[in-house]
Amino acid sequence: MDTASLEQLLERYKSGYSLEQPLYTGKEVFDAEWERIFRKRWLYAGNTAQIKKPGDYFLYHLRNDSVIVIRGNDGAVHAHYNTCTHRGSAICLQDSGHVAKFICPYHQWVFDKDGVLLNARMMPDDFCKERYNLHAVHIKLVEGLIFISLANEAPDFSQIEKSLSPYLKPYEIDKAKVACIKNYKLKANWKLVAENFRECYHCGGAHPEYCKAVIGANLREDVNEFTVEKQRDWNKKGLATGLIEIADGTTTYAVRYPLRAGVESYSVDGKKISIPMGLHKDHDAGVVGLVNYPNFWMDAVSDYVWTMRVTPVDAFTTDVEFCWLVDEAAEEGKDYTVERLTEFWEITGTQDAVLCENNFKGILSNAYSSGPYAPVEDQVVNFVDWCVKELKTG
Amino acid sequence: MDTASLEQLLERYKSGYSLEQPLYTGKEVFDAEWERIFRKRWLYAGNTAQIKKPGDYFLYHLRNDSVIVIRGNDGAVHAHYNTCTHRGSAICLQDSGHVAKFICPYHQWVFDKDGVLLNARMMPDDFCKERYNLHAVHIKLVEGLIFISLANEAPDFSQIEKSLSPYLKPYEIDKAKVACIKNYKLKANWKLVAENFRECYHCGGAHPEYCKAVIGANLREDVNEFTVEKQRDWNKKGLATGLIEIADGTTTYAVRYPLRAGVESYSVDGKKISIPMGLHKDHDAGVVGLVNYPNFWMDAVSDYVWTMRVTPVDAFTTDVEFCWLVDEAAEEGKDYTVERLTEFWEITGTQDAVLCENNFKGILSNAYSSGPYAPVEDQVVNFVDWCVKELKTG
Amino acid sequence: MDTASLEQLLERYKSGYSLEQPLYTGKEVFDAEWERIFRKRWLYAGNTAQIKKPGDYFLYHLRNDSVIVIRGNDGAVHAHYNTCTHRGSAICLQDSGHVAKFICPYHQWVFDKDGVLLNARMMPDDFCKERYNLHAVHIKLVEGLIFISLANEAPDFSQIEKSLSPYLKPYEIDKAKVACIKNYKLKANWKLVAENFRECYHCGGAHPEYCKAVIGANLREDVNEFTVEKQRDWNKKGLATGLIEIADGTTTYAVRYPLRAGVESYSVDGKKISIPMGLHKDHDAGVVGLVNYPNFWMDAVSDYVWTMRVTPVDAFTTDVEFCWLVDEAAEEGKDYTVERLTEFWEITGTQDAVLCENNFKGILSNAYSSGPYAPVEDQVVNFVDWCVKELKTG
Repeated sequence: MDTASLEQLLERYKSGYSLEQPLYTGKEVFDAEWERIFRKRWLYAGNTAQIKKPGDYFLYHLRNDSVIVIRGNDGAVHAHYNTCTHRGSAICLQDSGHVAKFICPYHQWVFDKDGVLLNARMMPDDFCKERYNLHAVHIKLVEGLIFISLANEAPDFSQIEKSLSPYLKPYEIDKAKVACIKNYKLKANWKLVAENFRECYHCGGAHPEYCKAVIGANLREDVNEFTVEKQRDWNKKGLATGLIEIADGTTTYAVRYPLRAGVESYSVDGKKISIPMGLHKDHDAGVVGLVNYPNFWMDAVSDYVWTMRVTPVDAFTTDVEFCWLVDEAAEEGKDYTVERLTEFWEITGTQDAVLCENNFKGILSNAYSSGPYAPVEDQVVNFVDWCVKELKTG
Repeated sequence: MDTASLEQLLERYKSGYSLEQPLYTGKEVFDAEWERIFRKRWLYAGNTAQIKKPGDYFLYHLRNDSVIVIRGNDGAVHAHYNTCTHRGSAICLQDSGHVAKFICPYHQWVFDKDGVLLNARMMPDDFCKERYNLHAVHIKLVEGLIFISLANEAPDFSQIEKSLSPYLKPYEIDKAKVACIKNYKLKANWKLVAENFRECYHCGGAHPEYCKAVIGANLREDVNEFTVEKQRDWNKKGLATGLIEIADGTTTYAVRYPLRAGVESYSVDGKKISIPMGLHKDHDAGVVGLVNYPNFWMDAVSDYVWTMRVTPVDAFTTDVEFCWLVDEAAEEGKDYTVERLTEFWEITGTQDAVLCENNFKGILSNAYSSGPYAPVEDQVVNFVDWCVKELKTG
Repeated sequence: MDTASLEQLLERYKSGYSLEQPLYTGKEVFDAEWERIFRKRWLYAGNTAQIKKPGDYFLYHLRNDSVIVIRGNDGAVHAHYNTCTHRGSAICLQDSGHVAKFICPYHQWVFDKDGVLLNARMMPDDFCKERYNLHAVHIKLVEGLIFISLANEAPDFSQIEKSLSPYLKPYEIDKAKVACIKNYKLKANWKLVAENFRECYHCGGAHPEYCKAVIGANLREDVNEFTVEKQRDWNKKGLATGLIEIADGTTTYAVRYPLRAGVESYSVDGKKISIPMGLHKDHDAGVVGLVNYPNFWMDAVSDYVWTMRVTPVDAFTTDVEFCWLVDEAAEEGKDYTVERLTEFWEITGTQDAVLCENNFKGILSNAYSSGPYAPVEDQVVNFVDWCVKELKTG
């Protein structure tokens, strides 16, 4: 049995080769990742379309923590830990909902949407109310996306904002309509889910529907010429096209790539799913692919946005949330159906879930050893390198 | 992450403030509680009305232990560990039942009700039968209530007996009828269940049915005058009324308090539930409230007794058993129905279960910190102080 | 709480008495058993009748490992770890099936049945394919039974082969027909399952069907004369009868014993189950009982073979697989029915499962202490002695 320490494991990591088993399965490693990555970095929580009106809230569960994300009175968005400052009770009991004020269900302490303790009944005269506001969580918005940080001091957000903003702007997410949210529990280490979404070496064999929609996804077609041509079109329309790669000190990846000629949307039949979203005028914006390490993935087409939020539960379990957004004016039943809207990513996501779970099963074996990534898996290497670096320096 | 030792946590405990997180969630803390409190103190196991005839038994499951409580031939009550002295098999496989003798289901060793090994077939001539009686558990009775102790040397029982006896006597529990027993598994640390039952700060907001039955439970009514008047009546009838509080070296709390004028029993409609119980002649005995740390709660009215047995399973899970007793002569369907009998505490108990579980969820958060108890939560402080003291001295 | 180390526990082991609690429940002990026994010894995996044609395979799950046992092109049998040498994905996803070649479902690396990497698409020119064959598992066959070893260097197999071979030969298992395979998860330490199958002290009380079929199983009948007579018959027919006991350095037990006069098979009604199997000409071969420590049990009668594979999952859980084999020419519905074939061992095995689980429940108690084995439990002592010795020397 391998009894190498985390530090030894990190030291002997060899870029270009998959991680050693304990880095996927060890409890000590997982705890370190939680402290040095998840409780340190900006995490995608959700979007402002989920909480349109003041008092609308949703919860984001992160291991033992539950974070309330709520629209405040002034339209701003606040994030608080969902734990009463009296005796610790959870305050919001539904995963999403609406409150005028927070009233703790245990002893009815009352807090405002911004976390200020308004009333604690029957407390003595010398009770210092100001010391018992809700515990705040750092929060940042970029074009309707909500990021939070559990760190004591939140890291810089400007790089993320600058990278994502031009790609997000045309979708007008803050005004958009949340058409569907689904959660999946995967029996796989969270890094395998991330790795899976950073390469298309598996696409040809595993994703027939995806390869039918996206030219080059099978890695057998030359797409350069076609892409250059599409980029010229997109630039004319003012759509962002500059590739942003994750490098030293950054966490954001952004790209726009074309759908196959004649394909209008991420759909099984290649036809459009809904009306063009936000500022888009047609179904020809290609695919916007966004990533922010460690937990945010988004693929958007002309008529809908699909986000993926990856949340580790323990070393063996990962919660994945999919959210589908359409234009604010899109009417269900007329402009789109939830069934067609979700079909493409339910199919593709389920294929990936099975791959990730089987990948994890094999890694659990005593016989598993680090294997070489293929050259086309360079973005996986980028992600794994990043994780190792965060663990080393965190 | 907090890595304070149990001793450090106990040392920095500040009376009047809720416990720090690890004291509710830590495995080391839980193990210490088990050894220093639950394997040391007297624990309520059940009552003698559950085992009327010689050979009647029930099991009390305490973590990995199963204790058989059985009525012996002479009417006495015995308690044994449910593990054969041959190869360790569990002997009684049902949670309650009747046996003439214990016959181990594995190899048919035979034990008498008092635990004596009567026969071990095919053992060699030099086998010393006397060394293989069942392992005994300390047992004490008080007016039909059965307490056991897993300690090597059982602590003094006289204080418990003296405190509970006058309050229990009129109910004649030994002759009573067990109308219903129910078990609940709560996802909450056992101390939160105990705390919940030691304050009514939450009653006004959480228990409309309870507040309708009990005057002053909402903490907004002045009940002194009314109570003094009722106590005069009770004393005339010879009913105990002296408040017994838990102080240094004691574990028992006892009180009698009034129902709202016109309310006859703990019932949703305020009407009586059954015929007066035991020596009671009317429906005007108020409520007898009894507690014995760490695991016994009882609320009795004129016509029924309700007991609550709180058993930790692990730091995150608590087993709660409710038992309802009525007069021996009460006939189901005529004098009472199980549905009406159990309704009041099923409603109130379920409200409390939800509060406890949500309290625990919030305490699991990294943001949870000790908060101040309200002055009306003084009995919670009494309980938490007691726990800390037991842990320190145990 | 007992905090004795494994070494201390082994040192104070007293032959003739059941093991101390931590040797049945401790995680450290279980891990040591896994390393010193299960990852060292030959383990029964299955039989060649399960994989008749080249490309037929089945999986054997051992804790986190999954081993593929496959029939190769040349009729030979291979065993590989079910984990891709690229990024570790499980390769075979069904518990049994057929493959022409192994194709990893993640990135389509292709391996031959003997584990050789045939193709790894898109890898660079300097990729050294020879270094990435599947990880092999040691494998040995004896008369159709498949044994594997997870050890780095596999132990000697000749003693097992020599002991089992004469008893197995007449059944012609390689040509036989697998009629049924069933898996059971027992909530009991694996050693209790093994112990249960090494004594008949419990048979009289627990197994009425078994005692009806097997003379002497109740330990109350004198079977010597009858057995001697039957052995004379069996020897005339060329059937092996020599008792093989487990002694220093060996792991195999073999015996042939008679069914009750007039009983033709292991069946509830005593009548035959199928046509005579393999080289058998009649229903008078008695019972062949075979054991190989740590995980193999087999009881075979004239017309069917029943195997039991015992696989620890953790200290508290054991996977038990039953497999029933009949003659290759036996036709379901005409010569036998699966219902009748499996009835006898389903009844008897379920009785044993309940005994083992209750044995384990009682051992979990703090009051459990080592008890004395009866003289008729001498084979249990043999097994426990063996375990302790393996742990000491492993």
